[in-house]
Amino acid sequence: MSSTDPLENLRRELAEFARERDWDQFHAPKNLVMALSVEVAELVEHFQWMTPEESRALDRKKRAGVEEELADVLLYLVRIADKLDVDLWGAARRKILINKDKYPVERVKGKSLKYDEYED
Amino acid sequence: MSSTDPLENLRRELAEFARERDWDQFHAPKNLVMALSVEVAELVEHFQWMTPEESRALDRKKRAGVEEELADVLLYLVRIADKLDVDLWGAARRKILINKDKYPVERVKGKSLKYDEYED
Amino acid sequence: MSSTDPLENLRRELAEFARERDWDQFHAPKNLVMALSVEVAELVEHFQWMTPEESRALDRKKRAGVEEELADVLLYLVRIADKLDVDLWGAARRKILINKDKYPVERVKGKSLKYDEYED
Amino acid sequence: MSSTDPLENLRRELAEFARERDWDQFHAPKNLVMALSVEVAELVEHFQWMTPEESRALDRKKRAGVEEELADVLLYLVRIADKLDVDLWGAARRKILINKDKYPVERVKGKSLKYDEYED
Repeated sequence: MSSTDPLENLRRELAEFARERDWDQFHAPKNLVMALSVEVAELVEHFQWMTPEESRALDRKKRAGVEEELADVLLYLVRIADKLDVDLWGAARRKILINKDKYPVERVKGKSLKYDEYED
Repeated sequence: MSSTDPLENLRRELAEFARERDWDQFHAPKNLVMALSVEVAELVEHFQWMTPEESRALDRKKRAGVEEELADVLLYLVRIADKLDVDLWGAARRKILINKDKYPVERVKGKSLKYDEYED
Repeated sequence: MSSTDPLENLRRELAEFARERDWDQFHAPKNLVMALSVEVAELVEHFQWMTPEESRALDRKKRAGVEEELADVLLYLVRIADKLDVDLWGAARRKILINKDKYPVERVKGKSLKYDEYED
Repeated sequence: MSSTDPLENLRRELAEFARERDWDQFHAPKNLVMALSVEVAELVEHFQWMTPEESRALDRKKRAGVEEELADVLLYLVRIADKLDVDLWGAARRKILINKDKYPVERVKGKSLKYDEYED
């Protein structure tokens, strides 16, 4: 039985994947978060020697490698959220509202400072 | 006009958020990937001194902090995928198939080795 | 001509290594910092599925792998400091003083909170 | 009694710092490695929206912030090496020899590929 939410389908599939392999014993959030950081670093590795401009125009082979790492990041993110019983869509919605508040357009337009670095 | 896919809605909303602030100039994938790694580290920070067991049972305050970092990771992930024109659901589906192949149940059950560390 | 400070010798050797390979063009601090984060993740990967107790008692093979990653972290750290003309020993001394101030013994003994999480 | 090797002095001072605070219980290598990755991310954060060129010419305020993060990275690195009884200078020497072998000048000059990406 599949849900209409792709995230929910992914969550179930990953839970099943871990259960079949008896991996829940390893999947403490602490450990999963470490694994997530490793996947992100594999993504970073693709970009480390590129200029920002080059990173905007990846060739096909590079793009395929990057795509696979993005998938890994998503898989671990969904798995962590499942283990902690966090609703990712709800959390994302709330965070966008927080960000709109922290970074009002008139204040930050065209600037890349952190919210606490703007002078009043 | 909103899509039925929450990810697509998120993608549009983040694109609009950046456009309003004139931030596309900063959002080269190279830079976004660095920002993603910073968000993941903020997640790691919550867990660094916990035992794995403690990480399975967060108190309410800790859980709220963790939830916000998970949202940040998702937001940057969606933004990067948008900038690189990657279909995250498709990439995740493909990666699950790869993982099933790399980690066959009978081979890896109850073990936490990397796919290339199993002895034949 | 070698210095009595092993760090200074390392700095020179890495500068020579990059110069011979014409790699200074790639060694912007931004890029080197990304590379450093990738090396640290390779270190994290060794520990991700271990318990904290297991991480205190590595077997010989694991320890050799970890040692190599620690070396990589040191090499990039020294290279970044060189490129930014930072005196690592001086910076470390200053940071220890800051930490002593942030974490007074009587306040933090036996606790793992961050300096801004202690209640007065 | 202080050594002539600044690294050895640092090692002792950090061990004393942790002992006084009863922090050895938290300083499993697994946890320290997570903390190291968090410090590196704080370094990355300084550079995330800069161009590579900008990262070569930091202003005084930025440089001071970066210097403090470099110190944090060194402190955790030394602490981890101490806990695992790793000789950092020896490991670095060995790694440089490995790198010279992996990246022969005539093969890699002016190129930023990974050692396993060069075509023969």
